[in-house]
Amino acid sequence: MSLQFDQAKPMDVVAMGRATIDIYANETGPLEEAVTFTKYVGGSPANTAVAMSNMGLKVGYIGKVSDDQFGRYIRQYLEKKGIDTSHIAIDKSGARSGITIGEIKSPTECNCLVYRQNVADLNISCSEIDEEYISKFKAVLISGTSLSYSPAREAVFLVMEFARRNGVRIVFDPDYREGTWNSDAEAAIYYMLAAEKADMVVATRDEYDKMESLLMQGKSDDKLTVKNLLSRNVKLVSIKHGKMGSTIYTADGKVYAGKPYPAKVVKTFGAGDAYAGTFMFGLISGKTIDESLKYASAASAITIGGHSCSDSTPTKCEVEAFITAYDRVKND
Amino acid sequence: MSLQFDQAKPMDVVAMGRATIDIYANETGPLEEAVTFTKYVGGSPANTAVAMSNMGLKVGYIGKVSDDQFGRYIRQYLEKKGIDTSHIAIDKSGARSGITIGEIKSPTECNCLVYRQNVADLNISCSEIDEEYISKFKAVLISGTSLSYSPAREAVFLVMEFARRNGVRIVFDPDYREGTWNSDAEAAIYYMLAAEKADMVVATRDEYDKMESLLMQGKSDDKLTVKNLLSRNVKLVSIKHGKMGSTIYTADGKVYAGKPYPAKVVKTFGAGDAYAGTFMFGLISGKTIDESLKYASAASAITIGGHSCSDSTPTKCEVEAFITAYDRVKND
Amino acid sequence: MSLQFDQAKPMDVVAMGRATIDIYANETGPLEEAVTFTKYVGGSPANTAVAMSNMGLKVGYIGKVSDDQFGRYIRQYLEKKGIDTSHIAIDKSGARSGITIGEIKSPTECNCLVYRQNVADLNISCSEIDEEYISKFKAVLISGTSLSYSPAREAVFLVMEFARRNGVRIVFDPDYREGTWNSDAEAAIYYMLAAEKADMVVATRDEYDKMESLLMQGKSDDKLTVKNLLSRNVKLVSIKHGKMGSTIYTADGKVYAGKPYPAKVVKTFGAGDAYAGTFMFGLISGKTIDESLKYASAASAITIGGHSCSDSTPTKCEVEAFITAYDRVKND
Amino acid sequence: MSLQFDQAKPMDVVAMGRATIDIYANETGPLEEAVTFTKYVGGSPANTAVAMSNMGLKVGYIGKVSDDQFGRYIRQYLEKKGIDTSHIAIDKSGARSGITIGEIKSPTECNCLVYRQNVADLNISCSEIDEEYISKFKAVLISGTSLSYSPAREAVFLVMEFARRNGVRIVFDPDYREGTWNSDAEAAIYYMLAAEKADMVVATRDEYDKMESLLMQGKSDDKLTVKNLLSRNVKLVSIKHGKMGSTIYTADGKVYAGKPYPAKVVKTFGAGDAYAGTFMFGLISGKTIDESLKYASAASAITIGGHSCSDSTPTKCEVEAFITAYDRVKND
Repeated sequence: MSLQFDQAKPMDVVAMGRATIDIYANETGPLEEAVTFTKYVGGSPANTAVAMSNMGLKVGYIGKVSDDQFGRYIRQYLEKKGIDTSHIAIDKSGARSGITIGEIKSPTECNCLVYRQNVADLNISCSEIDEEYISKFKAVLISGTSLSYSPAREAVFLVMEFARRNGVRIVFDPDYREGTWNSDAEAAIYYMLAAEKADMVVATRDEYDKMESLLMQGKSDDKLTVKNLLSRNVKLVSIKHGKMGSTIYTADGKVYAGKPYPAKVVKTFGAGDAYAGTFMFGLISGKTIDESLKYASAASAITIGGHSCSDSTPTKCEVEAFITAYDRVKND
Repeated sequence: MSLQFDQAKPMDVVAMGRATIDIYANETGPLEEAVTFTKYVGGSPANTAVAMSNMGLKVGYIGKVSDDQFGRYIRQYLEKKGIDTSHIAIDKSGARSGITIGEIKSPTECNCLVYRQNVADLNISCSEIDEEYISKFKAVLISGTSLSYSPAREAVFLVMEFARRNGVRIVFDPDYREGTWNSDAEAAIYYMLAAEKADMVVATRDEYDKMESLLMQGKSDDKLTVKNLLSRNVKLVSIKHGKMGSTIYTADGKVYAGKPYPAKVVKTFGAGDAYAGTFMFGLISGKTIDESLKYASAASAITIGGHSCSDSTPTKCEVEAFITAYDRVKND
Repeated sequence: MSLQFDQAKPMDVVAMGRATIDIYANETGPLEEAVTFTKYVGGSPANTAVAMSNMGLKVGYIGKVSDDQFGRYIRQYLEKKGIDTSHIAIDKSGARSGITIGEIKSPTECNCLVYRQNVADLNISCSEIDEEYISKFKAVLISGTSLSYSPAREAVFLVMEFARRNGVRIVFDPDYREGTWNSDAEAAIYYMLAAEKADMVVATRDEYDKMESLLMQGKSDDKLTVKNLLSRNVKLVSIKHGKMGSTIYTADGKVYAGKPYPAKVVKTFGAGDAYAGTFMFGLISGKTIDESLKYASAASAITIGGHSCSDSTPTKCEVEAFITAYDRVKND
Repeated sequence: MSLQFDQAKPMDVVAMGRATIDIYANETGPLEEAVTFTKYVGGSPANTAVAMSNMGLKVGYIGKVSDDQFGRYIRQYLEKKGIDTSHIAIDKSGARSGITIGEIKSPTECNCLVYRQNVADLNISCSEIDEEYISKFKAVLISGTSLSYSPAREAVFLVMEFARRNGVRIVFDPDYREGTWNSDAEAAIYYMLAAEKADMVVATRDEYDKMESLLMQGKSDDKLTVKNLLSRNVKLVSIKHGKMGSTIYTADGKVYAGKPYPAKVVKTFGAGDAYAGTFMFGLISGKTIDESLKYASAASAITIGGHSCSDSTPTKCEVEAFITAYDRVKND
């Protein structure tokens, strides 16, 4: 395989980016009519970190949370999930933690209202980035949302520099969310600048379209996307196709198809994070890409059957039981 | 009494300011541990408008809401409560409606996390203010939160000008919320500029302290507060003392004490809005100040026994039943 | 006369507002072709302060300048002109002093390019306002440009409050400059809020139109302007008509016409400031309004015959010599 | 030599970045005391473009100027200098062109006050970048000042992408100016992101220190600087040492020393721009690096003997005459 991890490093993956609050409607239907809600920790890199920790990886976090009840809740939750929170800073400027209000109109039509104005996670700055900490991990996972504003944007590029010169693999997930960017041009430019420094890029087709909106406008062509990224030294490109599964392309020219497991869907949120985290687990623990994809698909299927993103992420045991059960049924 | 309303005007009170979303924890205790929440319409002027409409006044609203599920919910709710929503504009800039997360640590210790960055209600501008509409009301109720940012701030001063030249009485409630102002100096300056244009000011002692922080720093003296405001042509000053009741001072030198009714407290939020709205009902419907205070105290007592601000506001029938029941018990 | 000054106060007028840099083309013609320039101190309140000091008044200044060569030059120049600069603060944020590039296309067609983004003078804040200092002056002159941004805007309203409670007369000059305001609505609202706190308002017809753009849109009617301001307790209203002279309206219903002296015009900039400063000198030194207008017109005529605003302002001796000379010629 | 240009391309160099106004004191001494000034076109990439055009290269410009007299003057001046101005956009937002006030305290102590708040040149955006135009040039010269703010920053990265995929060489000059950046971290991050996409980097030691402030803090070591940049695929690194000359390092490990010519110094501004432009002329017209350095040093020496940056840049004829004259004297 094209992507190698330095197994001498004591820790597995450090995630960087927003760790925020999900407030999801309990009632299925239009948000206008929803009456009660449940609160979870959310944000793509946080969900992915939980997924990786659930699978048994040694996970750390680089982030910044609000100096209030929500910020404390986020740290406590991640800690409870076994994630090292020593590098989650506390914002003293009065900024709040971001909120995502989740509307579950139907199991397949989920929307969210995102509150991301002046949020604590975007206030992380270069002076808070610790090279020694990063150097202990086999890989760093970067969420592209942190690229949307200064000073978080610069902190991301600094993390990438520190990772590169310490032999830490870089995984980049654009994590695009409507309404978080000043302009499409900014998203396209900073996505590409970050992607070309990554060893692995994980994104949906829509996210690649955002990334290519200035350089390959309107192409939306998987082959071009892969060719462009591999030519910039990315080693592994993952294109997620939602319920159609995903495809992996590697620098040695191989292609791997990940097929989804059938699932009882409660909401579609969080499937991609469970997928990415579990796939990372596979790669780092030495499984083949095909095996890793199988694990990732199973974790996805389990997650969308629960109400939350972070809390519905399965453990390794649950994932393996799911695969066993499903394969038995299929083979009968 | 010093404050007269033009009874020839067809409508009663038009409220101006934030109409936002309250998301209150269902569990009593620290917010970190709260799991489920309930959604309501909130925001001081919205709550007060609902209180007035519940009491039977003809109420209108000047405001701006987000172009999303929350904005639509706010308009629908106010409409359902009998409030004229024809002058609630819809923000097309992508701004969200403000959110207030309510923590009910104990019945007497309630806190909130306020999300008010780039919110739709502060985007209302002078060009959206309709003099003819305002001229139809006996009074306009101004929430001081709208003074915290442009263009809403200028819209408030324009509403006041239109009110004055059309014989519409002005009621000003500073509605101070931590974290909504750039600086204490801004709060002090714009509160005073607005208060001196009002016929009636309703505020807590803490809010008067904010208003006086530049001109009477550290005094916190009710007599000075009243003297200052009456000298600037305010006709009626109400100082709210929380569970200790409130005191009314009028331009003719009279003082009226409003005593609270005993209440089973669920949360303290919203008591002041129910009080202000019901007191307005009393004044406008020709009751004496003492009677109006009695109604206001009863409405307060009922509201703090419910979970929300807007939804727990009583009807005229409930208020009168409460007073009758309480007075009977007391006289027994 | 309707406007009285407390002659017991030891100082005459304290001006508040921008003291900036004028860089005027030496060559008459389009600015594109201008090669050399001359530097002066400028800004309406600075020019007016110089005019008043030249006439012999005891003048002070409330302002803020950049911590650079231009800021130091401004303080040195005002000091040299006999103005007390003890209350000119120095901005430590890195902001620059504003610049006005002057184009003298022809003696009667003068334009300027204004650099007023993040300028030091708008950074003056309430904490820098000294009530005791203000209380020593008979009058304070407020430039409306300081109302265009926070924190200067709030500082202006605080100065007005301090002036009122210490018996200091307030003179308000809107000092409108294209490109300094976020919106016409802001200019209209804050101009009116400031004007109604003033004892005297001095402005051009165009500036009154800006002030009235929300409340008397498109009227442009001197009588309405005067009626509106006098009804808000302004005691003296001056409407400047450029080379047509000016008219003064007082609270006791009197009207005074100021006729311009014929002048050899080099540039039209600064005429209004010389006029306002010299008129103030007249009022404070006990001259009649008619006499004061005569002095003001003479100072105007002299100023527009020079290249700069501040530096071309005449002394009392020059003004009186001009009047004597002119009257002799006329009477011959 | 390591750096090759595609000689089939019809045009030589397109410069991108600020084209602004220099207003330089005519009197030598402290700026406070300067009375008269002369106006020029300035801004590092504009000066460099003029230097290249003067030497006979076919030069274009990508930029944005104000919609006022200064903006028109800039375009007219560049056009007059033979530069293609078809891709200089006109800002319609009301932004001004930047101004640099030059203080010539003594021939060797020159300072400037920079006005760069909301300037037109930083408003250039991705939608104004024309790939076909760029593709016609052998090289593009990027000024790092454009990296200081959006949307110009993104436009720079887009220009670099377009250059790379069209075989256009990229020359990067950080062009650091005090007070133009939000933070040192931003300067460091975007300088490095741009430098590593360049074929050639031209900067002073101080500018490399800014670039390395996060990754090689406090090192200030030429060898490390060169090693770092060459490892990122830069082909030619130039380190300017002011009056000590400059050193060139190429990817093939060679080092070239450029020695300064003795000069009668009027002001030090602009020496670097003349140097860079003339050096580019040398490389593109096929001269050796040593010859190119000789030309560059001569152009520098001539420029600092004049009052302006742009206007004092010599023609090819003047440069060659200077070299001939100097070499004859030396050899006598």
